[in-house]
Amino acid sequence: MSTRGAGAQARVLMIGASGRMGRAIVRVAAERPDVRICGAVVSAGSADLGRDAGELAGIGRIDVPLRADLAAALAECDVAVDFSSPAAAAANLAACVAAARPLLIGTTGLGTELAADIERAARHIALLVAPNTSLGVTLLLELVKRASQALPDDFDIEIVEAHHRRKKDAPSGTALALGRAAAQGRGQNFGEVAVTDRNGARRSGDIGFAVVRGGDIVGDHTVVFAGSGEQVQLMHRATDRNVFARGALAAAAWLCGRASGQYHMRDIIL
Amino acid sequence: MSTRGAGAQARVLMIGASGRMGRAIVRVAAERPDVRICGAVVSAGSADLGRDAGELAGIGRIDVPLRADLAAALAECDVAVDFSSPAAAAANLAACVAAARPLLIGTTGLGTELAADIERAARHIALLVAPNTSLGVTLLLELVKRASQALPDDFDIEIVEAHHRRKKDAPSGTALALGRAAAQGRGQNFGEVAVTDRNGARRSGDIGFAVVRGGDIVGDHTVVFAGSGEQVQLMHRATDRNVFARGALAAAAWLCGRASGQYHMRDIIL
Amino acid sequence: MSTRGAGAQARVLMIGASGRMGRAIVRVAAERPDVRICGAVVSAGSADLGRDAGELAGIGRIDVPLRADLAAALAECDVAVDFSSPAAAAANLAACVAAARPLLIGTTGLGTELAADIERAARHIALLVAPNTSLGVTLLLELVKRASQALPDDFDIEIVEAHHRRKKDAPSGTALALGRAAAQGRGQNFGEVAVTDRNGARRSGDIGFAVVRGGDIVGDHTVVFAGSGEQVQLMHRATDRNVFARGALAAAAWLCGRASGQYHMRDIIL
Amino acid sequence: MSTRGAGAQARVLMIGASGRMGRAIVRVAAERPDVRICGAVVSAGSADLGRDAGELAGIGRIDVPLRADLAAALAECDVAVDFSSPAAAAANLAACVAAARPLLIGTTGLGTELAADIERAARHIALLVAPNTSLGVTLLLELVKRASQALPDDFDIEIVEAHHRRKKDAPSGTALALGRAAAQGRGQNFGEVAVTDRNGARRSGDIGFAVVRGGDIVGDHTVVFAGSGEQVQLMHRATDRNVFARGALAAAAWLCGRASGQYHMRDIIL
Repeated sequence: MSTRGAGAQARVLMIGASGRMGRAIVRVAAERPDVRICGAVVSAGSADLGRDAGELAGIGRIDVPLRADLAAALAECDVAVDFSSPAAAAANLAACVAAARPLLIGTTGLGTELAADIERAARHIALLVAPNTSLGVTLLLELVKRASQALPDDFDIEIVEAHHRRKKDAPSGTALALGRAAAQGRGQNFGEVAVTDRNGARRSGDIGFAVVRGGDIVGDHTVVFAGSGEQVQLMHRATDRNVFARGALAAAAWLCGRASGQYHMRDIIL
Repeated sequence: MSTRGAGAQARVLMIGASGRMGRAIVRVAAERPDVRICGAVVSAGSADLGRDAGELAGIGRIDVPLRADLAAALAECDVAVDFSSPAAAAANLAACVAAARPLLIGTTGLGTELAADIERAARHIALLVAPNTSLGVTLLLELVKRASQALPDDFDIEIVEAHHRRKKDAPSGTALALGRAAAQGRGQNFGEVAVTDRNGARRSGDIGFAVVRGGDIVGDHTVVFAGSGEQVQLMHRATDRNVFARGALAAAAWLCGRASGQYHMRDIIL
Repeated sequence: MSTRGAGAQARVLMIGASGRMGRAIVRVAAERPDVRICGAVVSAGSADLGRDAGELAGIGRIDVPLRADLAAALAECDVAVDFSSPAAAAANLAACVAAARPLLIGTTGLGTELAADIERAARHIALLVAPNTSLGVTLLLELVKRASQALPDDFDIEIVEAHHRRKKDAPSGTALALGRAAAQGRGQNFGEVAVTDRNGARRSGDIGFAVVRGGDIVGDHTVVFAGSGEQVQLMHRATDRNVFARGALAAAAWLCGRASGQYHMRDIIL
Repeated sequence: MSTRGAGAQARVLMIGASGRMGRAIVRVAAERPDVRICGAVVSAGSADLGRDAGELAGIGRIDVPLRADLAAALAECDVAVDFSSPAAAAANLAACVAAARPLLIGTTGLGTELAADIERAARHIALLVAPNTSLGVTLLLELVKRASQALPDDFDIEIVEAHHRRKKDAPSGTALALGRAAAQGRGQNFGEVAVTDRNGARRSGDIGFAVVRGGDIVGDHTVVFAGSGEQVQLMHRATDRNVFARGALAAAAWLCGRASGQYHMRDIIL
């Protein structure tokens, strides 16, 4: 992974600083030499306005008060990270374009109506939209696509995922993304080959999903390529939800100084 | 595992010597010092009558011709192993009682009508009926029951199994047996807690099953006990179908000289 | 695991309440219905005297101030848990005997000179000395001993452990304890069969250790029993250091109302 | 993996047909539609001269007698596969150049003095030298290099390998090759970072090796990338030695019709 020159420290503006991910990012930033939280923005009506971002995050005062004036905050930073809400995404995007600041959007559940805004904005600023900011998952998606391309079709593909007992959806969004990467590697239509139940024998070309739920497992994903006499297994295990905060900050640091354009998490690591 | 005294070699009569398991047992016996195939029986109409059991098994002549006269063959052996067919099981059992020889029945698919015969026979001879003769699976069943008893109820139990792509039934019979052992350890009714699909969140007390099918995987079974901040996983992997032949021969050697009674695979190892 | 009757809540006195484990136990107790921290003791010279145990543990006020008077604190509790220091262990033990209160000692590094004190004390109170209070590891030790007894000697035993990059000793203390349990199950002298380097071929009967160090892995331990054509693997994974606090509280609740005597973690779960 | 057009069947000449790998390749070829063994060569003094290659391989007559005249045999084939001996390699190579036939050399232990011959020959024929012909291992080497490049340096790299109890060298050659791929991905000198014993704490940048030996494990290799709060693990498991024969035949089929040049196993799959 290419990194910024020694000594350079990205000044990060956290948009959505009072949310679960916002607070995690503030905490994790305190441990990294390559970034510094220089501003923290919340919505105008927030009860947390004026509080210190570090205290809210549980790491003690960092002298960064939560404020609502995004334009003013952007003026003092190198890059913005948005984990606020889908409703606020369009306005945040416009403000970053106006201020000419690179932006990482980590908010999930963005409507498709934002697609055109995103494309337009990327002509002016460096922009990265990331539904999953874990570096490990980003890598795994690439490796799975590559393995799926490389191995003969008689290697059967199966995806096993394990999460904590309270997770309601199954398979996980990441497991489905891995399945799509595998299907893409083979030129398959994912919808036609994905199999989540097991009645009767396996059809050639199927991509099967197996789901484990228990305890407080943060998230394990294994992609199995099972051939004759050999298997390849590619696995990611998250043991700490902070991995998403770390990946977001690595991406933010990476965006500083980039040319305008739309980037993806895979660009950070490959 | 207790074993027989040094030098003692069990003389084994193979009933059903021309079948897949019969031939595997003849092959595996040639590698073991504790047993010797001293007789091989097939049905009276078999086309293999008179052939050498070793040649049929692919290991070269062992001077044990396939014959149909079970009573005569029993006279020259210490213990009989039956992997013939459900239809022949009752007659084979009666012959062993008449000859006062211990018997291992490995035939699967025995009808319930044989239960009374088995109980009666066990008053006269040492008798072991084993649907699965792998030592490792036998052990795993015991460990799972014990772990399930020992761990608090907030350890969720999940069972993951993987088999080759052609396997039609799911979950595997062994996975279901492991689930029953786990439910028994907790005093649960297995039918009420077994879950094979994943819609919505996990109910407390559920035992979940996850199924992987691919390649030529002989059989992997993992029982996961997932608690808060820790997991215990108990796993068995078969990489060679001969494990069933090996376990059958270990059980046959163990049966020699035992008092009459009905035994189980778990008695061999515990 | 047997548990106390519904509604019964063990009143726990935390000795060494300002240490890392003491604070973890205070935090974890707040999540459990079966226990309540009713007192917190530190050494007479502690700078934390008078502070609230909950605030010190980061969970907010619980109205349990840290005090130095152990005898007075014992009078108001059902059971004591000691994670203070080896130097204080003898005096704490004597105080519990005088107050007739059951005691869990989780302090590690106790000198052998305490053995006689412990034996004497156990004539008067229920006493449990536990170098490792994880329920999962306690179970694994039992299962490994049992598996080692049960499986034939041609199942080779290997132990793989993984810990974070800063761990200095290798193999881990828990890996060695697992090796001892395996050797005990086979009637072997552990010192004669433990192998930590790999030069030349494996000797029959060896117990091999393999060590992985990286990232922030809390602790994985796998005991492999590798036979011909099959393997049994017994694994424990810790993902959160709080597992030790949880196990200590489970043990404390279990000790309440027990007859005098010396107990072990295995008694809690088996 | 790109494959040859439907219907095209590569006619393969097996050089070293009476050896362990030669016989395995003859067996495996019988199961594949894309190749056919059309010739089998052994050394002039071989006791097997004249025997049928299929019978020698245990699959019954295939009407391909073992012969010593390599030039004549080459005339009737599309591609040659050499698993004979280092001593015969140079002459075999020269014969393939003279006959203008592509060649896969799977023989291990080739001297460095052959390097110039190989380079010269590759100007005239399509030539592939492969110390390990498993497709899965070939892929894993590529993925490991890529992952090592992609992930930040604070992901620690560890390699765990497991093999049968009789294997004498440790770590395995494949584990070392994986370590070299990982070091190459990071621009490290492998010799400086490889660590096979565990005394004291981990140095940043180390690549650690852990070794398991037991039972009849064919070969498991896992490369662990352990970061903060997440891990990526890339694993290969061989369960059947025939994987090397399969990979060799896939490579042979791939070589047919290629331009002259030196190829590698990675070219087959990537």
